[in-house]
Amino acid sequence: MTLLVIGTLAYDSIETAHASQSDVLGGSATYFSVTASYFASVRGGAVVGDDFGDEATSVFTRHGIDIQGLERVKGKTFRWRGEYDGDMNEARTLDTQLNVFQTFSPKIPPSYLASEFVFLGNIDPPLQLHVRQQFPRARLVACDTMNYWIKGKLEELKRTLAAVDLLVINEGEARMLSGSDNLKRAAREIRRLGPNIIVIKRGEYGACLFKDSTIFFAPGYPLEQVRDPTGAGDTFAGGFMGQLARSGDLSEAGLRRALVYGSVMASFAVEEFGLSRLLRLQSREIEERFQEFKTMTHFDV
Amino acid sequence: MTLLVIGTLAYDSIETAHASQSDVLGGSATYFSVTASYFASVRGGAVVGDDFGDEATSVFTRHGIDIQGLERVKGKTFRWRGEYDGDMNEARTLDTQLNVFQTFSPKIPPSYLASEFVFLGNIDPPLQLHVRQQFPRARLVACDTMNYWIKGKLEELKRTLAAVDLLVINEGEARMLSGSDNLKRAAREIRRLGPNIIVIKRGEYGACLFKDSTIFFAPGYPLEQVRDPTGAGDTFAGGFMGQLARSGDLSEAGLRRALVYGSVMASFAVEEFGLSRLLRLQSREIEERFQEFKTMTHFDV
Repeated sequence: MTLLVIGTLAYDSIETAHASQSDVLGGSATYFSVTASYFASVRGGAVVGDDFGDEATSVFTRHGIDIQGLERVKGKTFRWRGEYDGDMNEARTLDTQLNVFQTFSPKIPPSYLASEFVFLGNIDPPLQLHVRQQFPRARLVACDTMNYWIKGKLEELKRTLAAVDLLVINEGEARMLSGSDNLKRAAREIRRLGPNIIVIKRGEYGACLFKDSTIFFAPGYPLEQVRDPTGAGDTFAGGFMGQLARSGDLSEAGLRRALVYGSVMASFAVEEFGLSRLLRLQSREIEERFQEFKTMTHFDV
Repeated sequence: MTLLVIGTLAYDSIETAHASQSDVLGGSATYFSVTASYFASVRGGAVVGDDFGDEATSVFTRHGIDIQGLERVKGKTFRWRGEYDGDMNEARTLDTQLNVFQTFSPKIPPSYLASEFVFLGNIDPPLQLHVRQQFPRARLVACDTMNYWIKGKLEELKRTLAAVDLLVINEGEARMLSGSDNLKRAAREIRRLGPNIIVIKRGEYGACLFKDSTIFFAPGYPLEQVRDPTGAGDTFAGGFMGQLARSGDLSEAGLRRALVYGSVMASFAVEEFGLSRLLRLQSREIEERFQEFKTMTHFDV
């Protein structure tokens, strides 16, 4: 089935304790779409400036990602600069230049309108809602958000949440949004705002899924070395939504498998700098790591 | 099978954001033995002062715990006073009075010497080693430790670790002991010190088991309210070792089930203040929560 993502394309400059790179291709829609392309037919909507090169564009076309919804405007592409401390748990933003993204208003090409799965990446909540409303018959509409919108545009964010089926959110941001430090109560409060399914990302501790009265936990994959956590959350969402679009299975069992695929893909993302590892993945590697998650969590009763 | 624990008995004074209680029965051997008594035949060794009342003693006898190894000496019982912040993740020690524990040297009654499973609670490493050497034919000898000994008695601790089969340790202390922030590398470094099996406790994020080349993860049980985390780690160890002693099963599958029972028991411990919840548990409740862990972690491949 088809999967649409709306989000950012960016040039990132990243510093870790071990390395640094400037102006590498990044952004939520990039990590999401490249990841999801291993699972489903993906199309993306975003905006870039006239500095966005053919090399960057070819990343999408090589992965069979439909970029008819990619708008090119005069000016500079969105830029983010950040650094990670030794433990790689949290990015410190050093500089954000919205550039052409400042006036972004996603235009959905007619060919996108039949998308069955829609992911509203972490952008201004009214823009998310505007996109959402163009997909009244989608099978599942999910969104992401961040502390910036929770603090600055809470009422608008609530209107978006009231209109989506699923929210993917960091643990810290779930606490902030719900006003509760307790995971279970936080999920319950957020479900009251609208989304029926809540996926909470817990960094190296994995992720969990709240739906009806059930909870499902997947651990983080134990890597010996995390080289760059940039994009891990968007990669997680890309694996999760990609698997849902591939299987079309929205049952509890289908959602659980998708959550594990999200964790699988995020674990690849952080193994190397930027997109590197995601660009040369093989299906066999993905399925092997999925099996490893089964081995790491299975016990007989 | 029989399970021996050596550790502390204490009177704890605990403050949380919601409540405070003074001089409640606590200590590592208390939480461990009461918990393990739901699984196996338990005997304990510890020291108390002449202020240790019959009411406290009766907690053990009512749970069928053999306390022949409980030494009573002149003076005051070990006392600990601590408080927890809102998120209940870490205890801040306000006061420690070692009292009679200062000169503790565990004496093992002859009737204990056939114990098949031995748990060396968090006490001075040379005392742990001294006890360990009296059980050359035990099926499994496990130990716990803490930052205090890692900082202050590292060489002595290494001698203890070289002589045990299994270490149960907090994630933060595993990092400190191994010198590695990375979970997998930390476990590998610690295994080099001696113990073949490493159990790392991760608080609300659950626990994991490292053995040979395999890793197993169990999540923390999602509670809506954590009332008092005191003793959760010792309770975890009591459930883990108790299940091993009940089943006698040291296979990979048996160790995994034991890890889940550890998480089950720790989740009960923190539901109420001090020992309260653990004192009135029913086997049915334990098995139901064990099944819940299966439900929370199972997915089909």
